[in-house]
Amino acid sequence: MLYGALEAGGTKMVCAIGDENGKILEQISVPTTTPEETMPPILEYFKGKDIAAIGIACFGPVDLNPSSPTYGYITTTPKLAWANYNIVGAVKDALGIPVGFDTDVNGSLLGEVTWGCAKGLTDAVYFTIGTGVGGGVMTNGKLLHGMLHPELGHMLMRVREDDTYKGHCPFHGNCLEGMAAGPALEERWGALGKDLADRDEVWDLESYYIAQAIWTCITVLSPQKVILGGGVMHQEQLFPLIREKVAELMNHYLKTKELEDLDSYIVPASLNDDQGIMGCIKLAMNACGE
Amino acid sequence: MLYGALEAGGTKMVCAIGDENGKILEQISVPTTTPEETMPPILEYFKGKDIAAIGIACFGPVDLNPSSPTYGYITTTPKLAWANYNIVGAVKDALGIPVGFDTDVNGSLLGEVTWGCAKGLTDAVYFTIGTGVGGGVMTNGKLLHGMLHPELGHMLMRVREDDTYKGHCPFHGNCLEGMAAGPALEERWGALGKDLADRDEVWDLESYYIAQAIWTCITVLSPQKVILGGGVMHQEQLFPLIREKVAELMNHYLKTKELEDLDSYIVPASLNDDQGIMGCIKLAMNACGE
Repeated sequence: MLYGALEAGGTKMVCAIGDENGKILEQISVPTTTPEETMPPILEYFKGKDIAAIGIACFGPVDLNPSSPTYGYITTTPKLAWANYNIVGAVKDALGIPVGFDTDVNGSLLGEVTWGCAKGLTDAVYFTIGTGVGGGVMTNGKLLHGMLHPELGHMLMRVREDDTYKGHCPFHGNCLEGMAAGPALEERWGALGKDLADRDEVWDLESYYIAQAIWTCITVLSPQKVILGGGVMHQEQLFPLIREKVAELMNHYLKTKELEDLDSYIVPASLNDDQGIMGCIKLAMNACGE
Repeated sequence: MLYGALEAGGTKMVCAIGDENGKILEQISVPTTTPEETMPPILEYFKGKDIAAIGIACFGPVDLNPSSPTYGYITTTPKLAWANYNIVGAVKDALGIPVGFDTDVNGSLLGEVTWGCAKGLTDAVYFTIGTGVGGGVMTNGKLLHGMLHPELGHMLMRVREDDTYKGHCPFHGNCLEGMAAGPALEERWGALGKDLADRDEVWDLESYYIAQAIWTCITVLSPQKVILGGGVMHQEQLFPLIREKVAELMNHYLKTKELEDLDSYIVPASLNDDQGIMGCIKLAMNACGE
């Protein structure tokens, strides 16, 4: 069986065809400009591909409530051309097949839970740390939506005493995204993250905020694993620093077999940056009831 | 049908008999000292009561994983007489009926979701703020356990700039419990919370920390409602202060119908402090598969 996958990001839209094993058979990418420009080539791509369903993992905020009149819409995004755009409706109208829909980050988590490093787990968290910070959450074997969906990037941070940076988030200043996303790195240190690789103080501070976010998730969600993806996390020197700081924050308060082995508990995304598009395949499979 | 309920707290154990409507027909209370002293009168109480099952909501940490060899145990509690005590086993051996088991705070949340202010919701959070701070979480209609269970009292706080108090938590100092539980109030202000009712600065600071915890839960869990119980929350003047500060932290970032009406979103526990024992009745009903 073939499935369509649409990973709808703020910069580009990745379209792919895959099979029930998560194998990607072909893919294209279209720049995200306006719905009028971006959507027609996407819909054209999927036509005649003999796919049973399509899964969309989309930048947000999005309406995930199937009983809402605006289910399947991108809602209050600052990318104004896409605000209140019914992306699920557009795809369903054009293709006439079942459509699975979730946030971009829940899609990536679903990829990891289905085919990657979190395979078989029921409770996990996926952070993407790149141009923004977002997070996907699975609890009791289901992707978490709740009232809306998690917004992990906007949790408050305890600012390190020697850190005078005011933060990059227009809403909260020094929330997680405001302190730790790529633009914050660049503004704070005057260079791109990839050009700061040998500056220890950069990654020590970066790991201070990421570790806090992980400890918060442990206290609130008690996940079985925490997965870190996104461009910033390609700086692999972050991982040992983050694990060390999570252990300090925990201070022996919790004892579980998972937390005894932080190398296996806090891990990089495992699917070569295909976790998002593979998650879309699984969303499509779920939309078929498979 | 009759059900047994055991709300196992660190100070006292409440035992009750109730029906399938959550109505409590009778109850007794036994001081929590040691298992040798405390358990025999409890087990005696339930014998011959013709109950179909019993639900236990227990202080923790507890092992909630049914496939674990220590399922049903109180584990690493600082109340050393109860550490590694198999409370579910003791009750099951004595009574020979199905036993439901969860944390004390998940029990209270279950009471509110079944018969109280969160009736019918699938995603909700319950905080108890008293001698300690704990929290229960429901996601997708199920109580959240994950790797262990949430430990909401130990999330980190951003300390208010003018606040020099070091915090009361032996593990984390100024986590939520360290800054906002009853003993922190007493140590910081030199009096019990109930004797500080007219000191505005006390509740302004207290609400600063509680609001942070709620905002964190919104970003991580996206609950449909947040319920606040426990002794400290009997100070009803806290509620408007908390709502105001949550709105400030949110700063119009999220728009949902629930968040437009914070008076209905952040609410006091609604079952006259019977939410815990009523939750135990529901745990018992669930243990029967009802």
